[in-house]
Amino acid sequence: MAAAASPPPVAALEQLSRTKMFGGHNLRFRHHSAMLGCPMTFSLFIPPSPATNLPVLYWLSGLTCNDENFITKSGAQRAAAAHGIALVAPDTSPRGLNIEGEADSWDFGVEFGLVSRECVVYQYNIYADDFFFDITIWIVKTSGAGFYLNATNEKWKNWRMYDYIVTELPKVLSDNFEQLNTSQASIFGHSMGGHGALTIYLKNIDKYKSVSAFSPVVNPINCPWGQKAFSNYLGPTKSDWEEYDATCLIKKCNRISTPILIDQGEDDKFLAEQLLPRNFKEACKAVGAPLTLRMQPGYDHSYFFIGTFVDDHIAHHSQFLKSD
Amino acid sequence: MAAAASPPPVAALEQLSRTKMFGGHNLRFRHHSAMLGCPMTFSLFIPPSPATNLPVLYWLSGLTCNDENFITKSGAQRAAAAHGIALVAPDTSPRGLNIEGEADSWDFGVEFGLVSRECVVYQYNIYADDFFFDITIWIVKTSGAGFYLNATNEKWKNWRMYDYIVTELPKVLSDNFEQLNTSQASIFGHSMGGHGALTIYLKNIDKYKSVSAFSPVVNPINCPWGQKAFSNYLGPTKSDWEEYDATCLIKKCNRISTPILIDQGEDDKFLAEQLLPRNFKEACKAVGAPLTLRMQPGYDHSYFFIGTFVDDHIAHHSQFLKSD
Repeated sequence: MAAAASPPPVAALEQLSRTKMFGGHNLRFRHHSAMLGCPMTFSLFIPPSPATNLPVLYWLSGLTCNDENFITKSGAQRAAAAHGIALVAPDTSPRGLNIEGEADSWDFGVEFGLVSRECVVYQYNIYADDFFFDITIWIVKTSGAGFYLNATNEKWKNWRMYDYIVTELPKVLSDNFEQLNTSQASIFGHSMGGHGALTIYLKNIDKYKSVSAFSPVVNPINCPWGQKAFSNYLGPTKSDWEEYDATCLIKKCNRISTPILIDQGEDDKFLAEQLLPRNFKEACKAVGAPLTLRMQPGYDHSYFFIGTFVDDHIAHHSQFLKSD
Repeated sequence: MAAAASPPPVAALEQLSRTKMFGGHNLRFRHHSAMLGCPMTFSLFIPPSPATNLPVLYWLSGLTCNDENFITKSGAQRAAAAHGIALVAPDTSPRGLNIEGEADSWDFGVEFGLVSRECVVYQYNIYADDFFFDITIWIVKTSGAGFYLNATNEKWKNWRMYDYIVTELPKVLSDNFEQLNTSQASIFGHSMGGHGALTIYLKNIDKYKSVSAFSPVVNPINCPWGQKAFSNYLGPTKSDWEEYDATCLIKKCNRISTPILIDQGEDDKFLAEQLLPRNFKEACKAVGAPLTLRMQPGYDHSYFFIGTFVDDHIAHHSQFLKSD
């Protein structure tokens, strides 16, 4: 008689940090992503306990960010604690692939500590002569441009951030955090992460209750950031790119009844060349999709802008996450 | 007949950045400090206009910080905007003194840009072969341990952060920002900056309307951080140190009628060895000084703790800043 099948293994999580904030906790984890073939980190804010059946709001960050920017700078935990919503901030890209060993080639003849595969920190303390001075050398290898798609170019075969966000990460969460209800989920993001939130939502409107974005890249096939990324990840055939372009996707989508909220700073230096919100607005209008596009005078592309309006976004999602 | 005396020159400010937040603006400036003999930066949050006769709330940061940590991480601008209070966050120490030219000795054979005398950033972009990868090398010389005192040791003669905060910076502000009323001022801070806020307040209770602190070093003469700093800055005579110790100062002060607010995380790893809040509490009790010491269960020493309670502190100061 064959042995009974083992249950599927629960993904092992390594807790990197835990800090209390607004009565809840910021938690940070590392886990091995089978989808991406590398270790990934994510941050999670759990509202004050007792908390069960918590809805989940995913935040996707932009270029050059990782899972920590939103947690450190947005101040979103205040509203998330008040509304009883868990925040999940994944990293923005696979990291450490194909660049193994590169950190070893730097040696400045000083003491050093290897913090991670992506970040080598050399610290040299000048003790005797210059009290309280020290020199820190950071070597940071950034690769935070996953664009939340599944690459088809063989060279970038590990870049499957779409599948990671839509499938693998929710499974990791539901396997490890019984207080989370990952079937009650919404998604938002900033810049490249706003692109990610909109495209993931439009391709999965049954999986997410609502979407919003700050300064999103809404029409990547028509801007330099998107064209550079898509030609590398997806190859030269431009019709293939449309699958990851919010403006193209919404034109094919006539089932949107939940309002889409977008905040866009008018003094954002990327507005005219990269973000193109009016293209998305026109597409929404053409198909009758409900869009609230708020052009915010004087605001730029930074987390100061996000921090100013993040409460509005959490309140927006809360009404749909709790409507069932 | 002698020519009429020229008015004293207005200190020249170089604006480094300006970002809108909560309807107001975060501004960052550099100026030459005659007091310290080096360039200094400070950050300033101005609440939404029209704003005149704005009271000023000084924030003093802790070890390893500069003027940006509070502005980036605390989220205090929300409450400051609501209360109509300007926030001023100075740097924590003179910088770049005695280490001139040191940045020039590092050369990794890559493109680089000199960001400031304290921070050299080398950026090397790998374009062809590793799309979207880049390496950034930061060389940061930190010297953020001014301890908000006037050093008497000749070697540290430029370390006069006390005079800078109490005298020079308010003059720079009143010379340059007509919307500020620097005679309506309060002060708060974190850790070393909590020490700074308390000692500066206790030595100048006619200049500041109120004081509060997060996780302050309240008794530096009895903790390693304080002993290391004071022996270097003030020399070996321990009785000289008491002038910059909040617990010693309050014992000589029987004129305190405004409540002092202190928040302290119970899970702060520096609590038992460095911060010693109970020493200050006992001293306040002995002289009848009104202290509200809130021990906060589960909170640590981070900006997540500060962000959680900063609204309470701004509301605390607001009642005294607007009482005249």
